[in-house]
Amino acid sequence: MNVIDAIRTKRDAKELTAPQIDWVIAAYTEGKIADEQMSALAMAILLNGMTRREIARWTAAMIDSGERMDFTTLTRPTADKHSTGGVGDKITLPLAPLVAACGAAVPQLSGRGLGHTGGTLDKLESIPGWRALLSNEEMLGVLDSTGAVICAAGDGLAPADKKLYALRDVTGTVESIPLIASSIMSKKIAEGTGSLVLDVKAGSGAFMKTVEDARELASTMVELGNDHGVRTVALLTDMDTPLGRTAGNALEVRESVEVLAGGGPADVVELTLALAREMLDAAGISDADPAKALADGSAMDVWRRMIAAQGGDPDAELPRSREQHVVTAPASGVLTRLDAYDVGVAAWRLGAGRARKEDPVQAAAGIELHAKPGDRVTAGEPLLTLHTDTPERFEESVEALADAYDIRTPDEASVSYTPRPIILDRIS
Amino acid sequence: MNVIDAIRTKRDAKELTAPQIDWVIAAYTEGKIADEQMSALAMAILLNGMTRREIARWTAAMIDSGERMDFTTLTRPTADKHSTGGVGDKITLPLAPLVAACGAAVPQLSGRGLGHTGGTLDKLESIPGWRALLSNEEMLGVLDSTGAVICAAGDGLAPADKKLYALRDVTGTVESIPLIASSIMSKKIAEGTGSLVLDVKAGSGAFMKTVEDARELASTMVELGNDHGVRTVALLTDMDTPLGRTAGNALEVRESVEVLAGGGPADVVELTLALAREMLDAAGISDADPAKALADGSAMDVWRRMIAAQGGDPDAELPRSREQHVVTAPASGVLTRLDAYDVGVAAWRLGAGRARKEDPVQAAAGIELHAKPGDRVTAGEPLLTLHTDTPERFEESVEALADAYDIRTPDEASVSYTPRPIILDRIS
Repeated sequence: MNVIDAIRTKRDAKELTAPQIDWVIAAYTEGKIADEQMSALAMAILLNGMTRREIARWTAAMIDSGERMDFTTLTRPTADKHSTGGVGDKITLPLAPLVAACGAAVPQLSGRGLGHTGGTLDKLESIPGWRALLSNEEMLGVLDSTGAVICAAGDGLAPADKKLYALRDVTGTVESIPLIASSIMSKKIAEGTGSLVLDVKAGSGAFMKTVEDARELASTMVELGNDHGVRTVALLTDMDTPLGRTAGNALEVRESVEVLAGGGPADVVELTLALAREMLDAAGISDADPAKALADGSAMDVWRRMIAAQGGDPDAELPRSREQHVVTAPASGVLTRLDAYDVGVAAWRLGAGRARKEDPVQAAAGIELHAKPGDRVTAGEPLLTLHTDTPERFEESVEALADAYDIRTPDEASVSYTPRPIILDRIS
Repeated sequence: MNVIDAIRTKRDAKELTAPQIDWVIAAYTEGKIADEQMSALAMAILLNGMTRREIARWTAAMIDSGERMDFTTLTRPTADKHSTGGVGDKITLPLAPLVAACGAAVPQLSGRGLGHTGGTLDKLESIPGWRALLSNEEMLGVLDSTGAVICAAGDGLAPADKKLYALRDVTGTVESIPLIASSIMSKKIAEGTGSLVLDVKAGSGAFMKTVEDARELASTMVELGNDHGVRTVALLTDMDTPLGRTAGNALEVRESVEVLAGGGPADVVELTLALAREMLDAAGISDADPAKALADGSAMDVWRRMIAAQGGDPDAELPRSREQHVVTAPASGVLTRLDAYDVGVAAWRLGAGRARKEDPVQAAAGIELHAKPGDRVTAGEPLLTLHTDTPERFEESVEALADAYDIRTPDEASVSYTPRPIILDRIS
């Protein structure tokens, strides 16, 4: 086997053989293929694509590069969810305890934010005392005692993916559907869940800007999951505008707790319930009523036990930003557009996100949205509140928002504005 | 400046700005851009191309990464030649002394062979005592005293190209017209010659398999040279079949000396004279007669002095292979095809070439061709003689020749065989 032959094969838009793929993944994991060779291959894959057969084998080889977890000792059926990431996407926080309250075991091995999208672990770390890093035994213990656990994935799962993801991140090769699908699914399958619901986002704030690309990613992943015996279904959901009314770590925890308390923004509640129903269906629990579990406080109970089991204080005051800056509406009318990407970049610049893996994040930084597309706004009234502990960042954050929104007269809006639903499609 | 932005620009088939290109080349030379980032960029360039403006700036930036030589102290005008490489391409050996005998100064900074193509320095090193490595002072001394010098390029010329070429070699990113053109021309322009003739080869044994690709490479390089004040012209020449009747180091030196003695294969003589006339024209020496300089021994005189000036003994016996294997014609008829690539691979496997830069080559290994396309052959008579010091290599060399040639009846050949001229086109 020869890595240059493999690179040339994809460069010339031909198909890699199964033994070639197995060898490439194993040799890269062992350090026998150099980073500069793997990045050239990744770029060729990004530009020339992979067949379904290649993607399936690539995923299987990445799973085989490490250990697989085993949840068969649990008495409850497991249900897992993965979102491809967006702005204001705090859904995992209310969703995991909600689905656990309805009878499933929900192991959520999550990641950190990079670039303009937030990370679930970063959000939870704004809760005083909460720990993301658990041993496998601790993780199973929390899962067994509370029904849900949200923690960092161990180093043993799909090490080939870890190495390749870090490489893609610095070589402009992230945005490839085959590489994204195999990266997500190799980790999720290695995690050993019995069922998986994917939240594949489409729009300006997502990796996939168009519904077509999101649909291709979703169907690729659904096929990979089902091929590996994991009942997998995907919802295509909107990411043209931020989800909910907050983007930023502690801000999003606060909003999630509101949802668990029976309140919260309508779009967050709608998507949380839809994903909960899919997860419960996939786990074979058809008689549960997640809306009731939100209303009666049972989801909140699981949340509190889950946070406490990982050292967090569910009653602690969440960090508040030292400085705020209010962006007011420049005109009265209807807000017809509030761009997810721009809001994500603005929140990132305020300190909510990181430019490099090793950067810290500010727990309290972020953006509150006082209006969502379709809402009436009044000139001079607050549209957005920016939060940071480092006010010198306001200027560049406001710059990122320069073209982030449109306000139209009600007459114009009635012609040009069509509300986009949260859930665009379902793929199974 | 950010290398990921640059990678994304080419990945998305957009144009790099001039400051981006300057920064990328300088930062890569200084080690501020990692190899895995540069290889991803190289793959994106290979697959998405570069505009003429980008290629020009990329070349200029590579020239600026190192020193430039200066031949303005010489009394003669300088003339330089570069071949894109092929099988049996020993033209530099008779050409440099021939053009020097006609009044130009010929500095030929040459390379070593890699893969199936031979290298001029490897060939000359089969002459006992001859040294490829000269200091800049020694090089100018040989050039001044004999009119010609063939030696290794110093490390100071276009170091960005050296680093990038080594990277491309291991990352499947060699075969890119913009990268090949800028690599060749950055070295040639940094060498400081006043005029340059390019021998751009097309066919199975060349990097450019088609005449169209070779034409694009040639016109790209001619434009780059003329933009930098180097009078540049290109000949497109055939590389579907090996040049001359030998492929291999000492074998090719022997054939070159035959040409300098007024003999040698017709195709080698034709191409040597054509390139000599172009070089003399470009150097502004219009009254010279290179055919006469071959016939009257004056080119041979320069050769002998040039070899001696670099420690070689022009009268020494050249190495002869310890073992030979004869491939005979399987049928009588007309040889209608003898594939350059297959012969090159076979000679390489015999030990004439190297797989990696650090490998040694066998001076005596290679292949003699007893017939050329268009020649009559007789069943059972020798077609090729294989030479090596390591006879265990005969088997894999013969394998490479399994589909290397066609023999047709004279009637068939009169219908299906059209001789291809050596010189296919001229681009200025």
